[in-house]
Amino acid sequence: MLSKTYTKYIQSLHHKKSRDAEHCFIAEGNKVVLELLHSKHFICEQLLGREEWMKEHEPEIRRFYKGPLQVIEPSDLEKISALSTPNNVLGIFRKSDPVKPVLQDRLVLALDTIQDPGNLGTIIRIADWFNIKDIICSENCVEQYNPKVVQSTMGSLSRVNVTYTNLAQLIQEHAAIPTYAAALHGTALQQLPRLTSGILIVGNESKGISEEVLQLAKEKITIPRFGAAESLNAAVATGIILSHLVKN
Amino acid sequence: MLSKTYTKYIQSLHHKKSRDAEHCFIAEGNKVVLELLHSKHFICEQLLGREEWMKEHEPEIRRFYKGPLQVIEPSDLEKISALSTPNNVLGIFRKSDPVKPVLQDRLVLALDTIQDPGNLGTIIRIADWFNIKDIICSENCVEQYNPKVVQSTMGSLSRVNVTYTNLAQLIQEHAAIPTYAAALHGTALQQLPRLTSGILIVGNESKGISEEVLQLAKEKITIPRFGAAESLNAAVATGIILSHLVKN
Repeated sequence: MLSKTYTKYIQSLHHKKSRDAEHCFIAEGNKVVLELLHSKHFICEQLLGREEWMKEHEPEIRRFYKGPLQVIEPSDLEKISALSTPNNVLGIFRKSDPVKPVLQDRLVLALDTIQDPGNLGTIIRIADWFNIKDIICSENCVEQYNPKVVQSTMGSLSRVNVTYTNLAQLIQEHAAIPTYAAALHGTALQQLPRLTSGILIVGNESKGISEEVLQLAKEKITIPRFGAAESLNAAVATGIILSHLVKN
Repeated sequence: MLSKTYTKYIQSLHHKKSRDAEHCFIAEGNKVVLELLHSKHFICEQLLGREEWMKEHEPEIRRFYKGPLQVIEPSDLEKISALSTPNNVLGIFRKSDPVKPVLQDRLVLALDTIQDPGNLGTIIRIADWFNIKDIICSENCVEQYNPKVVQSTMGSLSRVNVTYTNLAQLIQEHAAIPTYAAALHGTALQQLPRLTSGILIVGNESKGISEEVLQLAKEKITIPRFGAAESLNAAVATGIILSHLVKN
């Protein structure tokens, strides 16, 4: 059985304040935990899982992780999990140190005020699919280590470098790099060439890109609408745009 | 104050069994409720909302709805809401009678075992954006009237006809209509012409399209992957495919 103190410690990592103080975050479920274990960017501090899962995966786990494997009861897993349906295993990982994004000669993604954790996680997964190495978030985006973000990356967090900065300042400091803003009105996506470099900016779920950032963008681009929906989900829009702009 | 019985009745509509029995569903929030009120497909039975919201929107509401407007306290709204953060208004609507989908000379979407409510709702919204009029779901897809589905359609439920059937049977009965299956391997999306007719099949979040349905599809199509993510979210994949295939 998990001690009360340790249970409380793990539960505290559901909240940003404790993640910041402890420099740790939690990841859950078979796929996410195994992908993070495989990654060089994250150090695992502790794994807690159901007995069958631990037995099945121990050989794989031990290739990457020498620390403690704690077998726990489903009822304990439920207590420490941030998921509505806990999934076999929970890992505590150290946050990675921020790595400066590379903006030259590649396409990077900039997110302005993406606040829904599921959206950020899904966008990280999309970036990974299209081989986008860097996502630069405005400072008021949801934190990449939020348990729901981590969950919806499906492990892609281990391959995409997510950093936080002032987007307007970033664009001004890199005036030579073309910036493309996803907007409701602008150049139709299909009219743009495939891009090998630039910053693609995607905005908030309901408000879009902030005025300040939008005015700094070189070009506004849009996904042509054929029907009546007022907007698209931010992650869906990101996927559509990248599928048209990323060059093999 | 809401009576206990009426509170329980609305709460029961959070569950499919009661929605089936009552032939009603709930919709919440400014945008979704107003879009359903505007629609000819759904009849509103009752609106319950916060006083300020009712006052602000009464003129608009009264153009479409003559029934009772019940002002309720935030605490009551919290009790009857299916949202974690209730949003001003909840409407009880009658389900619309199923309308037979039109498969000739247009592109329709078929969903195989889409079980996540957020995904189905987002896909309905995407269909609305690309002017897809019919979504045909396999019988084990999540129900279109699930509160989370309704919520994530952002009102597009009023413009997209969603029906449920046996997909394999449907494809066999319409052998002359070309079917395209979204798969991890197949013809790259960009190599296909824009489509004016056909059935586009999208599969389950983790298992993809069932073997039986996949074998009946004329052509497998895929979103080229440049990076390392194992898969894309089903709604994101649907958005990407439609953005490449739908013809203006």
